[in-house]
Amino acid sequence: MERRNIQVLLANRPQGWVQESDFLFTETVLPSLMEGEVLIKHLYLSLDPYMRGTMNDAKSYARKVELGQVMRGGTIGVVEATKHPDFQENDLVSGYFGWQQYSIFNGQDVLGRNVRKISPKDGIAPSVYLGALGMPGVTAWIGLQTIGQPKAGETVVVSAASGAVGSVAGQLAKIQGCRVVGIAGGKTKCDYVINELGFDSCVDYKAGHLAEDLARATPEGVDIYFENVGGEILETVSQRLNPFARIPLCGLISQYNEISPQGFHNFGALLTLRAKIQGFNVQDANTNLWQEAINELEQLLLTRKLKYRESIVDGIEQAPKAFIGMLKGKNFGKQLVKLT
Amino acid sequence: MERRNIQVLLANRPQGWVQESDFLFTETVLPSLMEGEVLIKHLYLSLDPYMRGTMNDAKSYARKVELGQVMRGGTIGVVEATKHPDFQENDLVSGYFGWQQYSIFNGQDVLGRNVRKISPKDGIAPSVYLGALGMPGVTAWIGLQTIGQPKAGETVVVSAASGAVGSVAGQLAKIQGCRVVGIAGGKTKCDYVINELGFDSCVDYKAGHLAEDLARATPEGVDIYFENVGGEILETVSQRLNPFARIPLCGLISQYNEISPQGFHNFGALLTLRAKIQGFNVQDANTNLWQEAINELEQLLLTRKLKYRESIVDGIEQAPKAFIGMLKGKNFGKQLVKLT
Repeated sequence: MERRNIQVLLANRPQGWVQESDFLFTETVLPSLMEGEVLIKHLYLSLDPYMRGTMNDAKSYARKVELGQVMRGGTIGVVEATKHPDFQENDLVSGYFGWQQYSIFNGQDVLGRNVRKISPKDGIAPSVYLGALGMPGVTAWIGLQTIGQPKAGETVVVSAASGAVGSVAGQLAKIQGCRVVGIAGGKTKCDYVINELGFDSCVDYKAGHLAEDLARATPEGVDIYFENVGGEILETVSQRLNPFARIPLCGLISQYNEISPQGFHNFGALLTLRAKIQGFNVQDANTNLWQEAINELEQLLLTRKLKYRESIVDGIEQAPKAFIGMLKGKNFGKQLVKLT
Repeated sequence: MERRNIQVLLANRPQGWVQESDFLFTETVLPSLMEGEVLIKHLYLSLDPYMRGTMNDAKSYARKVELGQVMRGGTIGVVEATKHPDFQENDLVSGYFGWQQYSIFNGQDVLGRNVRKISPKDGIAPSVYLGALGMPGVTAWIGLQTIGQPKAGETVVVSAASGAVGSVAGQLAKIQGCRVVGIAGGKTKCDYVINELGFDSCVDYKAGHLAEDLARATPEGVDIYFENVGGEILETVSQRLNPFARIPLCGLISQYNEISPQGFHNFGALLTLRAKIQGFNVQDANTNLWQEAINELEQLLLTRKLKYRESIVDGIEQAPKAFIGMLKGKNFGKQLVKLT
C-alpha cells in the first residue's frame, strides 16, 4: 500500500513577522519499512512559541531548521507498522517528529529523552501528552520549582496565563499556597484564568491600564514572575517586584517577531532588589526531573486539581496559520493540529 | 576638652551627575560622653559606588540619606574615650559611622553586623578592613562563590577589574583555576591587573575596540561575568556568554549618574543561553558567610596570594571630590579618605 506523507518545510527565514509564505507544503511517498524501523502515523502536532526561534539563522537553544527541511515539532502518534521488536502496532509514541503526517523511526533515540512510549492513564486523551503532560507542562513545573521556588503566601505573577505553560505554572503555584495573578489578553481568557484555573486574579493587558490593574492585583508586590512574554509586560511587572524576587525566564513571545527586540529597560531593578532572572529550557533538565514533573502533573490531572484547555485545528494545511495565530495570542490554551 | 567634628551632609539630591555642591560641610562640637557611650575617632572613611544610590529619593538596597543628614559610609576608627564596658581605649572599630571625623556610639548595634571590633593580624593595616578584608572584599567573595560558582577551567570576566571589588573577585576566580579576564580603563590599570593581580588578560575599554579585544581575550566564551559596570560593557560581554552563564550583578556604576539608565538591550540572550543574572548586596548575607569570607580573604592576604591597592586622599575636605572621581573611574584600587 502506497502511503503519502504531507510535510511542511521551512521555505524562507522570516524577517520580522512570520508569514504563511515562509512555509512550503510538499507531499512524498513513504518508502517501505526496513528491518528495525517503525512507521508512526501522527495524531497531533504541537505548536509552540519556541519554533519561531528555529526559523532564524541564529544561535538559539532551539537548533535552527535548515531551509527546505521539515519544520521541527513535537508529535504524538500511533505505530501503524513495525519491524522493530520494541514497538508494537497501536503503541502511542511521542517525539519530535516534525510538521508532517507520518514518520519512519529507526528506534535510535536521536533526540534523547524526546522519544517516549506513552501509556495514557484512565481517560487522559493522547493529545494531553503534548500539553499539560508534555513539554509545556514540564516546562512550567521546572521553571516554577527550580528557579521560582515558591513559598506559601508569596505572590506569583504569570504572563500568557491561559496558555499551555502559563496555565500550569499558575495552578502549581496556587496549589503551593501562593497568591497567583495571571496576565492574559482579553476578558474571555481572564475569566477562564480566574473561574476555571482558579487564579486569584487576572489582568487583561489589552484593557489599556496594565500598570494600575496589576498594582491593584498585587497589593503586596510580586515575589515570582513566571515570564513568557517580555517587552512592555516585563517592564510593567518589574515595577512591582519585591526584594529577592525570582523571574524564571521561559519565553519572550512578544519579541520573537521583532527585528529589534526591545530588551529590558528597568534592568537596574534587579540590582536594587537583589532579584534573580534565569533563562531555562526544559530540554536541559535531566530525565529524573522530567519524570518527577510528569508524575506529579499526572496525579494532579487525575484528581482534577489541574485543568487545561486545548485549541485544535484540523489538518496539517492549517498548521502555518494556526502557528502565526498562536504567536499573536489568538489561541486559547494549548495549540494543537489534528493530523488524522 | 572640646572636640570639634567636621561632617559632610547631603545638601541636594543630584539629578544626573553628582556635583561637589551637592555636599555641605558642617562643624559641630561633640557632647561629653554619657554612661554606655564610646567616642570613636575615625582613621579612614571608605568611598564606595553604592553611596550614589543613597543620594537619590528612590528605593534602593542602600537606604536613602535624608537631606541635611550626614552621608552614610563605612569607617574604621579608634576608641578615644569610653564609658562602655565592652570597649577599651585604642580598640579598633569598623562600622557605618558616616562621612565625619568622629562618632559617638552607644554600643547598640543599630546596623546589625556592621559594627565590629577589629584585631588586625600581623602587619595588616587598619585601612584594609575597609577594602579587601571589609565590605568590598566580602562582596567579591559572596558574589563569586554563591552566584558565580566558578569551576576550574571556566572563563570569568570581571569589569572594574582594578577596583576594590573587581580585583578581589578576579583573584579569587584565578585561585580556583579559572581563566580570568579583566576590563579596566587605561593601560596603567590593565598592566596592574595582569602583572600585579595575575589575571590572564585585561581589556582596556577606553582603547576603542572593546568587542574585538574581548573576543580575543575570551576564545572559549564567558562562563561568569562579575558585573560592576553595566551599559555598553554589559552589552558587549553579553555577546560572548556561553550557555548556562552566570552573572553576579554587583553594581552598575556606568548608570548611576544617568537620568535615563540604558537598561539591557541584549536581554533575550539570557533566554537563548539559559543564563542567570542575579543582583546581590553583601549586607543581605548572614554573619556566618561574612566570617567565612573574611577568614578566607585574611588567609590569602597573609600568604600574599591576594593583592590590593588603595587610593588615599588626605582630609575630609577631599571626600566629595574623591567620591566624584571614583564614580568616573579616576581612582585606582580601593578609594579611602584619611581622616586623622
